[in-house]
This record gives sequence, structure tokens and C-alpha cells, in this order.
Amino acid sequence: MITFTPKEKAIVDKIKELKKASGSHSPNKLTMLNSIPELSIKVDACFLSNPYANDLFLEYLNRDIIETGLLKEIIETYPSQNRAIAKPLAGHLRINPENLFVGNGAIEIIQAIIHRFVKGKLLVTLPTFSSYYEFATPETKVVWHYLKKENNFKFNTEEFIKTAKNQKANSVVIINPNNPDGGYIPHSEILLILKELAGLDNIIIDESFIHFALEDKTGEIMTATELILKYPNLVVIKSMSKDFGIAGIRAGYGVMSEAKVATLLQNGYLWNLSGLAEYFFGIYTKPDFSQAYEKVRKEYIKTTQAFFKELAAVPGLKTYPSQANFALVELTNGARAEDAVLKLLISKGIHLRDCGDKLGLSGEFIRVASRTVEENKMIVSAFRELFSESN
Amino acid sequence: MITFTPKEKAIVDKIKELKKASGSHSPNKLTMLNSIPELSIKVDACFLSNPYANDLFLEYLNRDIIETGLLKEIIETYPSQNRAIAKPLAGHLRINPENLFVGNGAIEIIQAIIHRFVKGKLLVTLPTFSSYYEFATPETKVVWHYLKKENNFKFNTEEFIKTAKNQKANSVVIINPNNPDGGYIPHSEILLILKELAGLDNIIIDESFIHFALEDKTGEIMTATELILKYPNLVVIKSMSKDFGIAGIRAGYGVMSEAKVATLLQNGYLWNLSGLAEYFFGIYTKPDFSQAYEKVRKEYIKTTQAFFKELAAVPGLKTYPSQANFALVELTNGARAEDAVLKLLISKGIHLRDCGDKLGLSGEFIRVASRTVEENKMIVSAFRELFSESN
Repeated sequence: MITFTPKEKAIVDKIKELKKASGSHSPNKLTMLNSIPELSIKVDACFLSNPYANDLFLEYLNRDIIETGLLKEIIETYPSQNRAIAKPLAGHLRINPENLFVGNGAIEIIQAIIHRFVKGKLLVTLPTFSSYYEFATPETKVVWHYLKKENNFKFNTEEFIKTAKNQKANSVVIINPNNPDGGYIPHSEILLILKELAGLDNIIIDESFIHFALEDKTGEIMTATELILKYPNLVVIKSMSKDFGIAGIRAGYGVMSEAKVATLLQNGYLWNLSGLAEYFFGIYTKPDFSQAYEKVRKEYIKTTQAFFKELAAVPGLKTYPSQANFALVELTNGARAEDAVLKLLISKGIHLRDCGDKLGLSGEFIRVASRTVEENKMIVSAFRELFSESN
Repeated sequence: MITFTPKEKAIVDKIKELKKASGSHSPNKLTMLNSIPELSIKVDACFLSNPYANDLFLEYLNRDIIETGLLKEIIETYPSQNRAIAKPLAGHLRINPENLFVGNGAIEIIQAIIHRFVKGKLLVTLPTFSSYYEFATPETKVVWHYLKKENNFKFNTEEFIKTAKNQKANSVVIINPNNPDGGYIPHSEILLILKELAGLDNIIIDESFIHFALEDKTGEIMTATELILKYPNLVVIKSMSKDFGIAGIRAGYGVMSEAKVATLLQNGYLWNLSGLAEYFFGIYTKPDFSQAYEKVRKEYIKTTQAFFKELAAVPGLKTYPSQANFALVELTNGARAEDAVLKLLISKGIHLRDCGDKLGLSGEFIRVASRTVEENKMIVSAFRELFSESN
């Protein structure tokens, strides 16, 4: 049993209050720290980013923008329009600029697609990222494809295609690797889905975590991006926050048919990216940055997979297979996930994601992000200590 | 006649090429400077901001974020959600948080309102900011209320109300002061419009330049914001870029009925503000910043009105009455506005806005923003020199 001292209990109440105001998402970290000064976060494994890529980006930012004084210009000047920012990025992604829409975070693109192009039945896998169903308009009926705990939340491609056909879905959403479990769909199966469901309005594939997946030993990123040339109903959505730890900048992109991009840009999204987001996409497409990133990306995948093995060996935890930079762990010793998350936050400064509010998860689940080698060690020790105490 | 040397002519061609790609807006300044290295901008009087408020904001930003290293946190962390950022701002604006929607620049709010709440006939004054009609959906029919040159583009409130009623408009748009002429509608007339058109779906008032208007000697800002408590069909839209020169940050807000805010937040706009925009709204509501801003705001209005008098005295220029931080000037000596703007940019590094693409303006018009006292002097001298040469 996880217990709290009266002092800890008082902090617990404050955190719950903040959480209530944030809906199905975590409260903003700075708000939390400002409102609860007793709290300190030493390891943020709630937020999902590669800390090494994060350092790399900050190094560039300091050199290019802070030290040169260019920040002033970037703050003052109107950023370029959507099409202008998309152009070099399209080259980098080996697609046509007409198929690319840059967004104020992936969330803006999710909203645009769900509001503007999704009508009728939308088939969504569960568990999932909540905005895919929360943003649905009254003209949309959301139907579920459950990923089952007893199958380790494994995505069954044949079953999914069958459900989409039986349900006569107009659109489908897949996150690959999936959030919050990290389950991965191999490229060959994505191809099968696109082939079998070519008649649908939209096949939405969220690849915000694909840079952390290791399909084979080459380590190549098996994105569906280039398939837009063959499948016009494909929509690939990509957040940049996870790769680079730049959630505060709001940068993402969507790959979709020319017609969809044209519709969006025809009457909106004029200056939807900030100056910093434009700067980010500028360096992202530069060869020297790309190469440096590729190195820390592969390094981090190794760190992450080693971390998941360590986690899996902690008594009282069941760790589900993940190809993302986080793992879904289930508490199998009777402890409550909410208590464990609160206890680790308050007593150790380790911030994890309680999945109690995630639809489609029944049990005591926590989502644990991989951080640096040192931070990951702290997380494993903290779990071991917590469960030896509470058992 | 304004003439160009062959070297200047080559630059002219490059600028026109860039302009073509930007639709009805100016090309991004950094893109322009990067693509045309021969160009240098010494005075940017195309962009509409208060340079003194700009300095004030940068001073705060440097002290709070750059020197403390907080920029890293702001870049990495998810910003707060829409409602959380709106709450302190609502207090500052003396309205309820339920009536406030913060946006990724005013343009995001214009898009949201025009797409989601405007149906049927939309009455728009002309000339205007082009997005108000460009963003209209196929379900909207835009009808015009012309501001006439022979009346100095003065807005006639009675006529406007009559047109709205005769046309059976469902929604109307007013910019106060208007862009691009700076014409101002006194508060008493705004009240009349709200009273007479209380049956309409939306009365959209864009107040992006209202901080530069001087209604009477008190210098108080006569915003319509608080009228939302009485007129639920009012929508006030406000860009922050013009007050503080922070176009690159993307920050604006909209004041509207509780129902409209709730509809927007129900299925979208989750994290639509960046970390820097959140920081901006944070200090904007602080008393010490407010007081310092109020001082530079009033100072800048004086500078601006003095500048307009100087401009009006230049032979060959007709300066129209403006209460914004820019004036619309007409070339009355036969010179072409496009040529004058290009010549001043290439030969003097003075960047102005040619209004040749503005609907509802017939003649040779340039929009000239007010800058610092020194920069304004440079603009006046450049015009005088240009016209003594070309006459």
C-alpha cells in the first residue's frame, strides 16, 4: 500500500485540483511548479522527448539566434507564410510542396483534418491520443477498434481492415507507434491497410513517434510520408515536439493530398507558424543538423530499449512492448497507478503520466518516458524502492 | 517621373517575383533580405508597430527569459491550455474569462470566427484587411460598404447601419481605426451600431490599432471590449503585434459570447499559443509592465500625429486623416505608388506598403507606418527628395 504523510496529502490535493482543470491532458509543468512551490521536478518522464536531440537543438538556437541577437528579428518580424515554410521541408521529406501543410503543432493539423475532411464514421483504435475523438464534430460518429491488453495491445492489421470494412468507416486513425502503449505496425502492414482501404476518405496515420521505432537493423525510419504520391487518401501527421523537445515552439506538419492542402490554404492558416517554428524547420532541413540529429536519434533508441528491459525486470511492474520513446507499465501488485505517480512526483521529483483517464485502458497503468541514461536509472531505482517499501 | 538604373531594375524584378508569391500580403522581411542580398532595410515602415513598446518588451524578455536561462524551459515545455492563459488576461481586460479566447495571432481568431460563426451575408467595409473577405467560406456572401476617397474614407455610421439593414446582412466587420486608412469611429457611434444592429449574428470589430487612437484629451483607450456584457453578438478582435512589434510570436485575443468561446474550445484550440506568447500575455497583465507601456503608448501617439503633419506638408502627397499608427498617402503628382515604394526601398532602405493590391482603393496609394522620431524624419526627407528629383 502506498501511503502519504499529511504534508504529502496536502500537495496531492493541490495537484488533483490542477489536473481537473486540464481535461484529458497533463497540466502545464510551469503552472504546476508555480502553483505548488513545495514541488520540484527532477526527472520529467511525463513529457515525451529525446533529451539528446533537445540539447542539440538548443545548441543551434544559442549559436544562431541568442548569441547573434537575431532573436529580436525573429520576434518582431512576421513569419513567412505556410507555403514558404513548407517548400524546403518538402524537399527534405522527398515529397511535393503541394502535399505539405505546416502546423502550429501537430494538434492544429489534427483539428484541421478532423474538422474539415472527416465526415460520417471515424474508426479510431483505443487506447489512443484523446484529441482524435474529442475534436470530432457533430457530423462524425466515432467507432472504436480496441487494442486488447491480453494481446499486449498489439495492433492486428487484418482485424482492423475487417472492422473498417464491416463498419463502413469513412475514415480511420492509427498512431504508429501508438500512444500510450508504443505498439508498432510494420511498414508492410501499413502498405496493406492503404491498399485494402483505398476507397476511404481518409487514412490518418500519426507518426509523431516513428523516429523512435526500430523496424530492422538498418535503423531507417519507415515513414509512410512518401506513399502520399500513390495514396491520395493518406494523411500523415507529425509532431516535432517529441523528437526535439520543443513543445513550447509548436511545430508539426501534415502530409496529405494536394486538394486537401489547397483547401486549407485557400481560406486560412496564413501565418500559423511562429518565427521560432520557422527557424526550427529551417535548420531541420540542413544537412549538418540532420546528420547530428541522426546520431543522437539512434543513440537514444538504444538507451530507450535498454531502459525498457530494466523496467520490465522491476517486480510489481508489467512493461508492455514499445517501439516509442515511452513504455506503458501496469502495476501488478495491487498498488494504484494514481498513488504511485503522485508518490514518485512528491517524494522523488519524478514526473510520470497516470493513465487513469485514458479510454480503453482497464487496470492500473502508467506511461513512462525514456530520458537520459542517468535519469532512466533514477526512475528504475525509484520504482524498486517504492515497491519494496509498499510490499 | 521615377526612373530606375539598370542595376536598380534588376532588384525591382526580384522584389516583384517575391511579392507575387505572397498573395495580398507583403513578403516576409527576412526572406526578402536573404533572397536579395543587394537590399538593406534601414526603416521598416511597412510593418505596423510601436518601436518604443517593442523595446520595452524586449527589455523584459531579456531580463526574464534570456539572462535567466528560462528560454530553455519555455521552448521545451508544453504551453498552458487556452483557458489557463485567458484567465489572467480577462481580469486585466475587466471581462469574464468565459468571454475570452486567446489566439495564435489575431489571424487565427479571424479565421475561426469567419469559418465557424459567419453564415449568409457578411457586410465588410472597403478598403479593409483582406483576410476578412478572403477567409469567407462558400456559405458566405460578402457585400461591400465603400468608404469613399472624396469623403477622406470617413466611416458614415448612419449609412453603414442603413446598408446593413437594407442588405439584410447577417454579420458585419468594422476595423477601428481602419486598415489601411486609419479612419476612426468614435465610441458613441460604435454604441449606436451595437444598439441598431443587435439582431445580427455577429458585429465584428477589429481593434488591432485602437491603442493608437486618441478620442479625447484623456488619452483613454475607447475599446468596445467591455460591451460584450451587454451585446452578445459583439466580437472584438485584437492583434498584439501592432502594439508591441511581436509579429513573430503570434499573439492575439478575441472577446465574444460565452457560447462562441465554448464552441471553439469544445473541440479544438488546445495548445494554440506558444510558450513565448504565454510569456507575453503573462507580463502584459502585470501592473509594472502596463504602466511602462502606457507611457510609451502616449508618447508614440504624439510622435505619430506630429509625423502625419510633416507628411501632409510634403508637396505631391495627400495624407488622409488617421488615428492609427500609419497613414494612407496618395501621390498627387502623377508618380506611380509602386515605383515610389520600390525606389525608396532600393535607394534609401525605406520600406513602405504599396496599396496597389488593396480592393476599394482607386489611385496611387502608399501606407506609411510611423516609427521613431528619427526614422520618421528620414521618411519625410526621402519623400521630399524623391519628389523634387522626379518633378
